[in-house]
Amino acid sequence: MDSAVVSVIGEDFPQEYLDLLTDRNINIEGVEIVEGGKTFFWSGKYHNDMNSRDTLETQLNVLADFNPIVPENYKDAEIVMLGNLHPLVQLSVLEQMSVKPKLAVLDTMNFWMDCALDDLLKVIAKVDVITINDEEARQLSGEYSLVRAAKKIAKMGPKFVVIKKGEHGALLFNDDHVFFAPALPLEEVFDPTGAGDTFAGGFTGYIASTNDISFENMKRAIVHGSNLASFAVEKFGVERMIGLTKDKVNSRLKRFQELTQFDIDLH
Amino acid sequence: MDSAVVSVIGEDFPQEYLDLLTDRNINIEGVEIVEGGKTFFWSGKYHNDMNSRDTLETQLNVLADFNPIVPENYKDAEIVMLGNLHPLVQLSVLEQMSVKPKLAVLDTMNFWMDCALDDLLKVIAKVDVITINDEEARQLSGEYSLVRAAKKIAKMGPKFVVIKKGEHGALLFNDDHVFFAPALPLEEVFDPTGAGDTFAGGFTGYIASTNDISFENMKRAIVHGSNLASFAVEKFGVERMIGLTKDKVNSRLKRFQELTQFDIDLH
Repeated sequence: MDSAVVSVIGEDFPQEYLDLLTDRNINIEGVEIVEGGKTFFWSGKYHNDMNSRDTLETQLNVLADFNPIVPENYKDAEIVMLGNLHPLVQLSVLEQMSVKPKLAVLDTMNFWMDCALDDLLKVIAKVDVITINDEEARQLSGEYSLVRAAKKIAKMGPKFVVIKKGEHGALLFNDDHVFFAPALPLEEVFDPTGAGDTFAGGFTGYIASTNDISFENMKRAIVHGSNLASFAVEKFGVERMIGLTKDKVNSRLKRFQELTQFDIDLH
Repeated sequence: MDSAVVSVIGEDFPQEYLDLLTDRNINIEGVEIVEGGKTFFWSGKYHNDMNSRDTLETQLNVLADFNPIVPENYKDAEIVMLGNLHPLVQLSVLEQMSVKPKLAVLDTMNFWMDCALDDLLKVIAKVDVITINDEEARQLSGEYSLVRAAKKIAKMGPKFVVIKKGEHGALLFNDDHVFFAPALPLEEVFDPTGAGDTFAGGFTGYIASTNDISFENMKRAIVHGSNLASFAVEKFGVERMIGLTKDKVNSRLKRFQELTQFDIDLH
């Protein structure tokens, strides 16, 4: 699978983290390094339930003026994942594509609903899948019921609506179909930062690697995303992800199967 | 399946509700009607999320002096479900059994942890299954993680620990095995009162009707309990349950399958 990252970092960004990408054959031509710049920085404090948090500090730094440039060789990418940034940045990436992607996935958050709703609605109208958390789905739709919220959001554009509920799992809506995957119950959640990103990456990565955008395959992608997120929260930052092997991933997928699969004969 | 209810009501209890039981061949010999007494009464107000509520009024009435008498013919019942009442009332039922039941299921709540913990621990030590909600599991165990909470509670006696998470589903723990069933995502939750009781009844009723206490069958029982609870919340009181048919129940079970079942090849 040929994939690339488009992003921006400062000179302070550790080379070893870039190596994590190139070691895995991920193209980083599209990662701009701003001379003398500082990388985006966030710190926060999680509440006891690990599902809510307070931001202590956000420094946009080089992200403030990010102008994403999609590398020439990736302008015909079939699968595009738009990470959680200003909707105009997300739109700019879509506009640079020479061919309409087979699947465009959008991640966003309440911050953009508060300060850039019109732009956000424009990009939402152009994507196939949106991933969003439960509170944000409620805010965006004005509906408390997640079933109704998903229906309203689907009317804004995306055929597939993924609602992330943190430790309570994730829902995938498509027309009248619903699929649900729980989060793996863990003894300890060490650091939930990035769990949603890991989920979105695992979800989209699985679809890209299988090149199948059917609902059945998206169900598998939801399970793969949840599975990877269950690792991400066990250590700080990307620490847990670095040592992952296919065996470890598969053996935890088996736990997902045991957790959710049952056999009821309805005849 | 031969089953009976042991309970207490006042003279104000509507005959038509008793008929609902006898019409379904449920023995009500053990339902004591206190002359001149008033039935237990509760009213409350649900918050917007329908997962939390404030009690407006609780009148224990005839429940205050309830002395349960298990009918002679049911003292050898194989499956016993102890509803959420004072642990001494629950213990008294167990002590009246002439044969140790194949499976005893206990439902309880935080109220008894606050005011009758010692008695509660005694009855917990004697049962095979406990059903309890997430906050109560945390209170009883002193552990935030539900995985750890379930392990601690299992050490108190019950081989099977069921943790109910309301709209976020239910977990079944048994040794190192975990199973999870989500609540069916609904457009509208009308009245969640009794959802937990419906779940416990559906869970235990399924085990009784199949006479199989294996973990595999308990998974099915969890799904059946969740399925029935999803009906219960759609109307006020038992209204939605009264009109239920096997077809309606089965067609919703199919929705549970679609909601949760996936197919990942790990080889």
